[in-house]
Amino acid sequence: MASVRADAEESATFLKIARAVEAYERDAERLLARWRKRLEDASLTRYARVLDAHRARVETRGTACVRTNGEFLRKALETFVDNELAPEHLRIPSDAFEAWRRDETFRASADDVDKVRYVLKNVWRDWSEEGKCERTPVYEAIFQGLEEVLGTIDPEIGNPDGEAPRVLVPGCGLGRLVYELAKRGYDAQGNEFSYYMLLFSSFMLNATREVGELGVCPWMHGRSNHRAADDMWRETRVPDEVPGDARLPPGACMSMAAGDFAAVYGDPRESGAWDAVVTCFFIDTGHNVVEYLECVANCLRPGGVWVNFGPLLYHWEEYAHEMSVELSLDEVLIAAESFGLEIRRTRTASADYTSDPRSMHRTTYACECIVAVKRAT
Amino acid sequence: MASVRADAEESATFLKIARAVEAYERDAERLLARWRKRLEDASLTRYARVLDAHRARVETRGTACVRTNGEFLRKALETFVDNELAPEHLRIPSDAFEAWRRDETFRASADDVDKVRYVLKNVWRDWSEEGKCERTPVYEAIFQGLEEVLGTIDPEIGNPDGEAPRVLVPGCGLGRLVYELAKRGYDAQGNEFSYYMLLFSSFMLNATREVGELGVCPWMHGRSNHRAADDMWRETRVPDEVPGDARLPPGACMSMAAGDFAAVYGDPRESGAWDAVVTCFFIDTGHNVVEYLECVANCLRPGGVWVNFGPLLYHWEEYAHEMSVELSLDEVLIAAESFGLEIRRTRTASADYTSDPRSMHRTTYACECIVAVKRAT
Repeated sequence: MASVRADAEESATFLKIARAVEAYERDAERLLARWRKRLEDASLTRYARVLDAHRARVETRGTACVRTNGEFLRKALETFVDNELAPEHLRIPSDAFEAWRRDETFRASADDVDKVRYVLKNVWRDWSEEGKCERTPVYEAIFQGLEEVLGTIDPEIGNPDGEAPRVLVPGCGLGRLVYELAKRGYDAQGNEFSYYMLLFSSFMLNATREVGELGVCPWMHGRSNHRAADDMWRETRVPDEVPGDARLPPGACMSMAAGDFAAVYGDPRESGAWDAVVTCFFIDTGHNVVEYLECVANCLRPGGVWVNFGPLLYHWEEYAHEMSVELSLDEVLIAAESFGLEIRRTRTASADYTSDPRSMHRTTYACECIVAVKRAT
Repeated sequence: MASVRADAEESATFLKIARAVEAYERDAERLLARWRKRLEDASLTRYARVLDAHRARVETRGTACVRTNGEFLRKALETFVDNELAPEHLRIPSDAFEAWRRDETFRASADDVDKVRYVLKNVWRDWSEEGKCERTPVYEAIFQGLEEVLGTIDPEIGNPDGEAPRVLVPGCGLGRLVYELAKRGYDAQGNEFSYYMLLFSSFMLNATREVGELGVCPWMHGRSNHRAADDMWRETRVPDEVPGDARLPPGACMSMAAGDFAAVYGDPRESGAWDAVVTCFFIDTGHNVVEYLECVANCLRPGGVWVNFGPLLYHWEEYAHEMSVELSLDEVLIAAESFGLEIRRTRTASADYTSDPRSMHRTTYACECIVAVKRAT
């Protein structure tokens, strides 16, 4: 009975999120309307000579960008409408979907509006050619950490005996790292809690057919710090690779598991079941980093490797009524050791996260790449 | 009559801000209490071994930091209590001050709490030895821009004829740049709208007596992205220089003017009155960047120089019901030209702003240093 209720709640949560995605175009049009109204203010009449070209750009390019993003999001959603091949927790009943489209009064919460826009930036990061500037240096550091402990895999030979190293990637977002690990011969499993990420990772991994078939305009929702007038309106084509077309090395494979990392992988059945755990911009996303470290240690077999890459931007810090444990990096390392994770090395590496490379404002993290090995005892 | 009411409103605004400063310790103690409560949660009992040292640090060092900051802020406030030498708009009546201290129920708005904490970071940036890493490269770029057009001033000789170049610095914050310009022989005037900045710039410029006499702990209010456990609790001593002790070059001087930049300097009486206008992290702070550029052009004499350093982080962008004009950099340059500011050169320079240099998260701006000359016609 409890699990039935839990399922109903889960389904309601998922449908709320899918509906916020469906509402994107109307939300973004309200944003354009706000900009338009400001620019039509009487106090600006005397600056017409300076502002006319600017206004025209907001009008024509803004409208086109909203349409491009709307098309991308709608196409993703439609993939899950009454789709019996989709995972059960990601199916959208067609009657609900049609009702949403007819209801013009609905407004997603401010938080959901932000999250939909954040999906578009993550699509840029994970699945565009331009996003390589962010993800490649990070992934290279992670692959190197894995190889230092597990050795290298020849992608031509792979693991023909079926013994591909099992790598777990909690908080895998839109799935690119999981896919890249599989391409290198690992048996990679992604884990994710957010329905936004589950929905769009499933779409990008399973439903794309052609390189560059879709467009997103991830930078159009913010008007600050643009160098050229066209920068905010530019479109990025995705995907830069079609996962369905990839020839994985023998033995390699990839899978996705939905759910909270600590709840799913803290289970005794997962104890020692993994050769590697990769936490990439992840350990600061939970309520309790210590519990996450304990869970990483639980998953790893003796001699297995933990590779971490990221800052310590604790996501729950500002939520006054939520649990949040915030350790410094040196405290994280001490906590990891206490769970039997022997720190082999750490290295600081600068990295951006969903930050427009052309912008005058960069969110740059002095990330720590940690390589640790699970002790035998 | 209208101006009397305006004065009463201004006075109320100032006292609201002074009161928020007075309330700092109680606000910060509530923050410590929140952290303490989280760390005492029953779910963390099993991690006592890992968390005990962490808890003790929050307790002892947290309490000490709040006291240090509280002392700094109180000392500044007390300087203005019934002080007849202070500017009229910055005087605090002693009866109000005493009433605030007795009222333990008062809570500053979330916005004001943030602004008080931001003052502490600005004190670090402008008036500490450690803050040099942020301000020196920026100031050097600005001095170079000024000298390219106005020539150099020998600090030993200064401007003995009394003709020191008049440099206006709108949005001068805590006044360090104004002071540094005066040290180089300019007749520098700072302009500032925020009472927070007016209060604390007046304190730092006029009321400090000894290098390092005061302490601030600017990083203690955020728990994310600390590398070492002690980083967030560290104290910085200020000032690194006592402005009152400075021997300015002959002819040099400094002054401060309170008020909105466009309202004060858009006035015909200011037309052509300045040899230079320096906008440092400023042009994006107003409601209308175009009006600011017009005002810069109005102030400058023909042949005078505008030096800009900063990003385009438009402060009013997110306020749905406020006017906000947001141009890209190339549009800013076109607008400046349209007001007779001939762009001599632009150069991109990376700079941080009140960002802990030890943190794993850096707010980095790809700033533009613009040097422009006011046309004769």
